[in-house]
Amino acid sequence: MSPHNPLDHRSYVPLYYQLRDKLRLLIDENLAAGDQIPSENELVQRYRVSRNTVRLAIESLIKEGVVYRIQGKGTFVSPQHMRYDLQRLVSFTEDMRRRGLKPDTRLLGFTRKPPPFHVANRLGLPPESESYEIRRLRLADGEPMAVSTAYMPCDLVPELTEGDLVSGSVFKTIEGRLRLKIGYADRILKAASADDDQAELLKVEPGFPLMLVEGATYLDNETPIEYVVIYYRADRYDFAYRAVRPPK
Amino acid sequence: MSPHNPLDHRSYVPLYYQLRDKLRLLIDENLAAGDQIPSENELVQRYRVSRNTVRLAIESLIKEGVVYRIQGKGTFVSPQHMRYDLQRLVSFTEDMRRRGLKPDTRLLGFTRKPPPFHVANRLGLPPESESYEIRRLRLADGEPMAVSTAYMPCDLVPELTEGDLVSGSVFKTIEGRLRLKIGYADRILKAASADDDQAELLKVEPGFPLMLVEGATYLDNETPIEYVVIYYRADRYDFAYRAVRPPK
Repeated sequence: MSPHNPLDHRSYVPLYYQLRDKLRLLIDENLAAGDQIPSENELVQRYRVSRNTVRLAIESLIKEGVVYRIQGKGTFVSPQHMRYDLQRLVSFTEDMRRRGLKPDTRLLGFTRKPPPFHVANRLGLPPESESYEIRRLRLADGEPMAVSTAYMPCDLVPELTEGDLVSGSVFKTIEGRLRLKIGYADRILKAASADDDQAELLKVEPGFPLMLVEGATYLDNETPIEYVVIYYRADRYDFAYRAVRPPK
Repeated sequence: MSPHNPLDHRSYVPLYYQLRDKLRLLIDENLAAGDQIPSENELVQRYRVSRNTVRLAIESLIKEGVVYRIQGKGTFVSPQHMRYDLQRLVSFTEDMRRRGLKPDTRLLGFTRKPPPFHVANRLGLPPESESYEIRRLRLADGEPMAVSTAYMPCDLVPELTEGDLVSGSVFKTIEGRLRLKIGYADRILKAASADDDQAELLKVEPGFPLMLVEGATYLDNETPIEYVVIYYRADRYDFAYRAVRPPK
C-alpha cells in the first residue's frame, strides 16, 4: 500500500476508510507535526472520491487526534502523541530523555506542611506530620505536557532542595543520594478537564480534556514515599498497557 | 472523623479541604447516587464557614466527579464510578456480574466482511479474508456504559450467532464452546469525545468526554483472536493499575 496509489473502488472496504489509511501513511512517511495536509479539493481530485468521503476520512483522523483543523486555514498534523507505558514506573525526566526530548521543569510551589487528610491517610502519616508539597509544570522541548503535585513525607526525604526538583528526577534523589529502592506505584487514571489555572499553565482553553493520574508510590519495603496528582494534556498522551486473562 | 463534628479552625489543613473530606464521608456513609447534598446555606451554618469555603469544597468534589450540579436545582451525588482494573482481562459481562450489576447488550450491528486495513494488519489477516464486525451497546442496570466494535476472524470463531453476542460474553463462547484459551490483550487508552451517534446511544451530549480503549486480544498461543474499539463514558469509569519500577 502506498499513499500514491489510487483507491480500490470495488473493495468491500469503505472508500473513506481507505482514504483515511492513505492519509495516515502520508503523514507517517512524509509529514511532520504542524505540516498542512492536502486540501479537500486536492484530495477529491487525487483520489477520485466525493467531497463527503474526504470529509469523513478527515473527521475520523481529527477524532483520533492525528490532525487538527484551524477554521479558514486548513488541516494540520498534530504534535505526536506520547505513547506512555502505564506499567513501567519511570519519572517524567527519564521518560522524556528516553524519547530524545529535552525535559524541563518549572517549580510552581515548594512548601513544608501537613498534607490534606486523604493524602496523609494514603501515606500512612499521623495528622500533624509534615510533607513537602511540590507543584511543578513539566515541559518537553519547551512545550507544556503536565502539571503535577507531589507530597513526600519530610522525614523520609530529608534535605530535599529546589535543585533536586528542577535539575532532574526526584527518583534520582531518592535512589541516588538517599539510596532507597523504589518498588511500585498504585494509580488511578480518569478523565478531567482544565480549570483556569491549569489551562493557563498548559496553554489550552479552560475545559480542555486532561488525563488525571493519581496515587501513591511505594519503596520496595512497602513504605509509601510519595502521593502524586498529575494532570496530563489529553491530546499529548496515549496510555499503553497489557491486560492478562486471570486464571479461573 | 465524623461528618457531624465541627471543622478544626486552628488546623493547618485549609477549611475547604476539611469540608470536602466531611462531605465525602457524608456521601459515602449516608447518601446514594442522585441524592441531593445539603445546600450552600445549610453547609455555611452547620460548619460555621464562609460561603466561599463551601463553594471551594463543592467545586473540588464536582471536579473529582463525586457530585454534579443542576443549575437552579442543587448539587447531587454522581452515579458511582466503576473502578476498572486495567491489568485484568475480563469481559464486560463478567465485570458487571462481579459488581452485582445486571449486564445488558444491545446488538447494533453484526456483519461478515473484510475488516478495515489497520485492523486486518493487527489481526494478521490476508486482505480479502472476512471478519465478524460486532457493534454493541453495553448497559449496566439499564444505564448505557460503553459502545464497542469488535472484529473477529470468521475462520477462528466459526458459527458465531446473535445469541452468543447478546446472551453474555463472547469470551464464554471462545473459552467454552470453542475450547480456546484467551491469553492477554494489548491496549491503548486515550481521551475522546462523543460524536452524534455515540452521544445518542450513551445518553450524553455530543462532545461529552469518553475514554477510548483499543487493541488486539491474543490466545495463549499468541494468535490474535479479536480487535476491539471501545468508547466508555468517562464519567462512569476510573481505571486502576500498578506501575512497577523497571530494573536498571
